[in-house]
Amino acid sequence: MFMRQSQLFTKTRKEAPADEVSKNAQLLIRAGFIHKEMAGVYTLLPLGLRVMEKINNIIRDEINKIGGQEVFMTSLQDKNLWKKTDRWDDKVVDNWFKTKLKNGTEVGLGFTHEEPLVAIMNNYVNSYKDLPKYVYQIQNKFRNEKRAKSGIMRTREFLMKDLYSFNRDEDGLDEFYEKAKEAYINIFKRCGLGDLTYITFASGGTFSKYSHEFQTLSDAGEDIIYVDKKKKLAVNKEVLNDEVLNDLGLKRGDLVEEKAIEVGNIFKQKTKFSEPLGLKFVDEDGKEKPVVMGAYGIGPGRVMGTVVEVYNDKNGIIWPAELAPYQVHLVSLCKEEKDVAKADEIYENLQKQGVEVLYDDRSDVRAGEKFADSDLIGIPKRIIVSPKTLEKNSVEIKMRGDDNISLVGVNEL
Amino acid sequence: MFMRQSQLFTKTRKEAPADEVSKNAQLLIRAGFIHKEMAGVYTLLPLGLRVMEKINNIIRDEINKIGGQEVFMTSLQDKNLWKKTDRWDDKVVDNWFKTKLKNGTEVGLGFTHEEPLVAIMNNYVNSYKDLPKYVYQIQNKFRNEKRAKSGIMRTREFLMKDLYSFNRDEDGLDEFYEKAKEAYINIFKRCGLGDLTYITFASGGTFSKYSHEFQTLSDAGEDIIYVDKKKKLAVNKEVLNDEVLNDLGLKRGDLVEEKAIEVGNIFKQKTKFSEPLGLKFVDEDGKEKPVVMGAYGIGPGRVMGTVVEVYNDKNGIIWPAELAPYQVHLVSLCKEEKDVAKADEIYENLQKQGVEVLYDDRSDVRAGEKFADSDLIGIPKRIIVSPKTLEKNSVEIKMRGDDNISLVGVNEL
Repeated sequence: MFMRQSQLFTKTRKEAPADEVSKNAQLLIRAGFIHKEMAGVYTLLPLGLRVMEKINNIIRDEINKIGGQEVFMTSLQDKNLWKKTDRWDDKVVDNWFKTKLKNGTEVGLGFTHEEPLVAIMNNYVNSYKDLPKYVYQIQNKFRNEKRAKSGIMRTREFLMKDLYSFNRDEDGLDEFYEKAKEAYINIFKRCGLGDLTYITFASGGTFSKYSHEFQTLSDAGEDIIYVDKKKKLAVNKEVLNDEVLNDLGLKRGDLVEEKAIEVGNIFKQKTKFSEPLGLKFVDEDGKEKPVVMGAYGIGPGRVMGTVVEVYNDKNGIIWPAELAPYQVHLVSLCKEEKDVAKADEIYENLQKQGVEVLYDDRSDVRAGEKFADSDLIGIPKRIIVSPKTLEKNSVEIKMRGDDNISLVGVNEL
Repeated sequence: MFMRQSQLFTKTRKEAPADEVSKNAQLLIRAGFIHKEMAGVYTLLPLGLRVMEKINNIIRDEINKIGGQEVFMTSLQDKNLWKKTDRWDDKVVDNWFKTKLKNGTEVGLGFTHEEPLVAIMNNYVNSYKDLPKYVYQIQNKFRNEKRAKSGIMRTREFLMKDLYSFNRDEDGLDEFYEKAKEAYINIFKRCGLGDLTYITFASGGTFSKYSHEFQTLSDAGEDIIYVDKKKKLAVNKEVLNDEVLNDLGLKRGDLVEEKAIEVGNIFKQKTKFSEPLGLKFVDEDGKEKPVVMGAYGIGPGRVMGTVVEVYNDKNGIIWPAELAPYQVHLVSLCKEEKDVAKADEIYENLQKQGVEVLYDDRSDVRAGEKFADSDLIGIPKRIIVSPKTLEKNSVEIKMRGDDNISLVGVNEL
């Protein structure tokens, strides 16, 4: 994929909306990746959609590897299903968006999808031979947050990757849970967050002692975690006590307090949902048993926001290579026809090589402004073509966030 | 992409839900492509999501070719924007779903996206130099239909491709409008609906004499159109009168009445939305003018439903090649270890060649049931591997909807 910047309908902006206080949203709005519809509700513009799709495809790739099968469930939710698990009442779940059909029937907008997925699995799971199964989607969730904050990291409408595991027993769940952990580690590594992201022990809720969060260190984080950097483990402040430290073999003295952003979480739900919703199977011993479940979430938008929070400088965003909207930002300073033709040729050659390239071919923008835009947008590799470089039949290559410039022959590109 | 059927979590079903009267939903539910959440609300299961993505990618391909830039807008809608165009009131637009933020602010769920997109374009369009621009998305719409019917063809929540054009003047709009028509013709052709789909003159609303619908002939259609099969043109019953026939150079005697499904539509909106929302630009002559718009819709779900309505037989669905969830259905009747190993090898070789293959490797299912499932699912090319074919180091190839079987050497595959 490739794009001439003269054609791109977005432009960089000097200012973000005055009510936008978070750095991730400020930078993403100024660079033209997102548009703020209202507090906590953001549209993805072409550059933003490209980054989001890259995150989604990394997630798909890693989740397919561990046996995930992708579906796409609906936002509109039948209340009868949610009453069975006691999650319909606004006193129990305080972030529902609800609406009504024309005939007056109340329906909800899904904030998660255990209930409808268990209902689906009920059509297909009868015997132990039908298990295990792993089902996921990348689908938009609605959460009626009292106050939306942190830019695109805590929003009222957002894409979520939610994976659910269905096993015969806890051994099967435990085994898959560890595989999911590995998949998550790979995902965050590929998103450029590997070194900053810690597996963090958190509350397990009613059915498990612990759940695990994936927390990325950042001053923009809403969570406080205690990190053992040597062991690459952390504990969420909410559950930090002597018993927990003892369980995990951690010492208070080794822990450092850090602010962090929860980029993913994994839970053992066991039979919490399968029992009330009647998802049972006949085991090898002829006995009927409830299916044992786990749930595994990642918010791709939150990953995108986190990446912007941790990779930026005073000039703009610095995308990790695998997430950048384009691999190369080709910036042309050519004005004369023969030079422009040369620059166009380089653009076409990069395309032919399968390089994703954004081509700043704008003829009415000064060099300084082009470089400022390029810094703000944050594509890691910049190739500059100008009358000066073309004299040497060369281009300049500069990496974002690095001042070194190297001259490379056009033919070597 | 490839999948072992023993791993696929869906199974074919003998019966669709009793309240499901439409053939497309019956077949798609029985074959495991979709799940009915409630009337007019369907989840895409793995096979269904694959078909939908194929339709979406055909659309993307053709719309990108005519200069479309993809975005992803939000469902939650700010009522202030819609009040400016007088489309907030339920008396004006009777299919809104509305909900409330925690602070009591009413918000809508988008049934279309002119208003928010024009607001976005307001940030980027100032001069004639910023035009033309073409922006689209494939995004879920909500429409509070009084009665959902026709299976996945008229639903309350559905994906829609909506493209909007922004031009300096009507000449520019007219030129792009013709390009969009061509793109639509290509899209429906690639979806297998080319021969059955007619450009149909329909009401243009307040701003244009006509709009154009793309209508696919089918007994399941809700629309009545009058078709001139030679000229490959049609007129919607709603606008059929002598003046219209005269305008279009059509004769009543040449027209045949047909039922049809509206799979796409294109409108010239001109300044209907840009004026009330203040989307203006300074033209070359220094004068401020409203941007001239067009809107172009396709429902990928409706395309999928239409394809099922027109391509099926008593045994199930017959997918056009470019939409099939997998290119090949490899059906193994092998039981003995050495034969199963051979079948596995064929499966792996097909994968290596980049063929998308669904592999019916189920060991506990009889041949007759496998063929019935394969017919129901409707993948166009079936490859059968059995002890009998392996004796001749061959496989049998059979096309869905065709009784001929040809024997092909394993090495030729």
